[in-house]
Amino acid sequence: MAGILSGLRIVEGSAFVAAPLGGMTLAQLGADVIRFDPIGGGIDHRRWPVTESGESLYWAGLNKGKRSIAIDLRSPEGRELATALITADGPGSGLFLTNFPGTGWLDYARLKARRADLIMLNVVGAHDGSSAVDYTVNCAVGFPAITGTEGAAKPVNNVMPGWDVAAGLTACVGLLAAERHRQATGQGQLIRLPLFDVGLAVVGALGMIGEAEINGTARRACGNDIYGAFGRDFPTADGRRVMVAAISERQWSALVATTGLAAKFALVEQLYEVDLRKEGDRFLARDGIAAVLGPWIARRTLEEVRQAFTAGDVLWGPYQDIGQLLAEDPRASTDNPLIGIVDQPRIGSYRVPRATLDFAAVERLPALAAPALGQHTDEILAGILRLPDHAIGDLRQRKVVA
Amino acid sequence: MAGILSGLRIVEGSAFVAAPLGGMTLAQLGADVIRFDPIGGGIDHRRWPVTESGESLYWAGLNKGKRSIAIDLRSPEGRELATALITADGPGSGLFLTNFPGTGWLDYARLKARRADLIMLNVVGAHDGSSAVDYTVNCAVGFPAITGTEGAAKPVNNVMPGWDVAAGLTACVGLLAAERHRQATGQGQLIRLPLFDVGLAVVGALGMIGEAEINGTARRACGNDIYGAFGRDFPTADGRRVMVAAISERQWSALVATTGLAAKFALVEQLYEVDLRKEGDRFLARDGIAAVLGPWIARRTLEEVRQAFTAGDVLWGPYQDIGQLLAEDPRASTDNPLIGIVDQPRIGSYRVPRATLDFAAVERLPALAAPALGQHTDEILAGILRLPDHAIGDLRQRKVVA
Repeated sequence: MAGILSGLRIVEGSAFVAAPLGGMTLAQLGADVIRFDPIGGGIDHRRWPVTESGESLYWAGLNKGKRSIAIDLRSPEGRELATALITADGPGSGLFLTNFPGTGWLDYARLKARRADLIMLNVVGAHDGSSAVDYTVNCAVGFPAITGTEGAAKPVNNVMPGWDVAAGLTACVGLLAAERHRQATGQGQLIRLPLFDVGLAVVGALGMIGEAEINGTARRACGNDIYGAFGRDFPTADGRRVMVAAISERQWSALVATTGLAAKFALVEQLYEVDLRKEGDRFLARDGIAAVLGPWIARRTLEEVRQAFTAGDVLWGPYQDIGQLLAEDPRASTDNPLIGIVDQPRIGSYRVPRATLDFAAVERLPALAAPALGQHTDEILAGILRLPDHAIGDLRQRKVVA
Repeated sequence: MAGILSGLRIVEGSAFVAAPLGGMTLAQLGADVIRFDPIGGGIDHRRWPVTESGESLYWAGLNKGKRSIAIDLRSPEGRELATALITADGPGSGLFLTNFPGTGWLDYARLKARRADLIMLNVVGAHDGSSAVDYTVNCAVGFPAITGTEGAAKPVNNVMPGWDVAAGLTACVGLLAAERHRQATGQGQLIRLPLFDVGLAVVGALGMIGEAEINGTARRACGNDIYGAFGRDFPTADGRRVMVAAISERQWSALVATTGLAAKFALVEQLYEVDLRKEGDRFLARDGIAAVLGPWIARRTLEEVRQAFTAGDVLWGPYQDIGQLLAEDPRASTDNPLIGIVDQPRIGSYRVPRATLDFAAVERLPALAAPALGQHTDEILAGILRLPDHAIGDLRQRKVVA
């Protein structure tokens, strides 16, 4: 099977989440993504979570479907090999994705001298050259201050590395846009993507800059409530929790009809002097709504809530930890075509997501394993750099590659 | 200025975050993105945050740089206009991005009959046709269960709509990949992108499915600590907070050298029987590290910490609410080329992020305002559907468009 990006080759010099996730996204769509690493592994090769024997489940998760070459990147000879790989010829190649500093041997101008139409996407910390990682973007752009209980003593960090994820996907957009431009013009280029800017752009997109600058207000934490509409978590009779939301008027009508609580909600409208058909009014009267809805849910088990809300087309979801997600949720089972079972060498057999995009005209690639470090060193040196066997043997013996 | 995606036209039928963010990302890169809405606005047209006069800062934030046409989408005539727009001819057009149900008049097969090479990307809830929004994906995929204080009584929702953001960016990847494929083959297609799958794919990418399935353990909340390395928040002498991290060995060395606390950290190593040069060991001994580092930070103001940590290349960041971000952080000022000032009609003048991707060979578009609803109705009907003035006037009079 080929994948929709068949014919595209990306060389990746990377670590951690953003750039590897970007490369993996392209690999899962059929691009040939070659990740080079130092011999023994990059800085993220043993990143937690790890198995009992120390294999990184994190690394395996972020490098699915790539080819791996291990090179001594401190030696001039190793750097020359990596440079040759980055700048190798071919119409769908000459794309380089990296979060390494684009300086020294990885300076764009130096690489461009070897391939004039090279596309290089560099994920950096901030625009000014300063460092930033997901955690230090997150604390600075304001989300921890509005996460968790209202009036809490301290901010609450996001655990999902949303800025890394967004940056990795944006990097794919950047590479595809630049390749499209190159097909039309023949021109390659350097593309810079600051992680901090990814965070700031989302803050702007959600209207939060305007809220502060135009309205002069700073949003406060409101627990698990959805800002500006109705949404809250509730405990069920069997000790589980559910999230219930009514953002659209249709969703609100469904909730009212399904619970049969229309008369009580009418009292809430009188009490709060609001019209609960209006989204913002539902936010203003959210405590009143919850006072009516909470007991209804508390008298029912999760399964009873599920049946009623599913039948009534209510917008809701169960809270699940990862174990519950994997054990109970059919959307996380192999009934979902997203999910395949992969036997990952040295780790074992487990559920692995495929590409999230389902292209009707191109078969979705099966779930893919991550490579072992250096698994494709020989085939890459022979196939792309066209080195003969004896030269590869010599490089191995002198520990320039592994 | 043209932008790197100049020549590409996307028609968008959308609401809320994911699809609008996808379209906006493409518009900021120079694509002609036309959002159609019902007359009076779609379901998200008044979404909070809003200004005092009720203008949605959220809508303005998510629709920057698009053209807007308002159509009575309940009438057959209005649907015919939208269909004609979606399927209008031209080499860079015939791309449709939507999170509306792809049924009825928006069924792909029906649209394809009008333009055989149509590309349609449909953001859906879950693969099985059930509904899902960011909030109901989030509760189900496990992050609220591991967010916030260890041992807390209830889960903590993410406030940043990370799944919507990731889905919007993935939609861009899907459209660009499909357009690349169409350029090569002439073939269009339907692409489905389930929001729930976006969440599940990230859970898998971060190794959390493996952690549960292979290790048989479920991760627990660990407050603001970084899982598997050292990272924690600390209060400063002037009542602010900072996030300090040491993920790589270099970052750890920088922290030790900058604080001059090597002797005390050596005692921590003895106490916990760990080697703090190892990432995972720093997580195991994080309380010991914090016991040493906390007092050092607590004796200093934010400004003193900033100076010391910046000079010493320590990985850190200040906690800021949106107000502090905008008032204090130069990265959020117009010194950052990401940021422009836009005078948004009926809202006012405020800071607006441009594209996060900086392409060296193509000038970045200025910060763009969002359209007023229906601002481009006439020019779209005339320019793309080639309707004469009298026909447009007639449509307006009969309230088919506005």
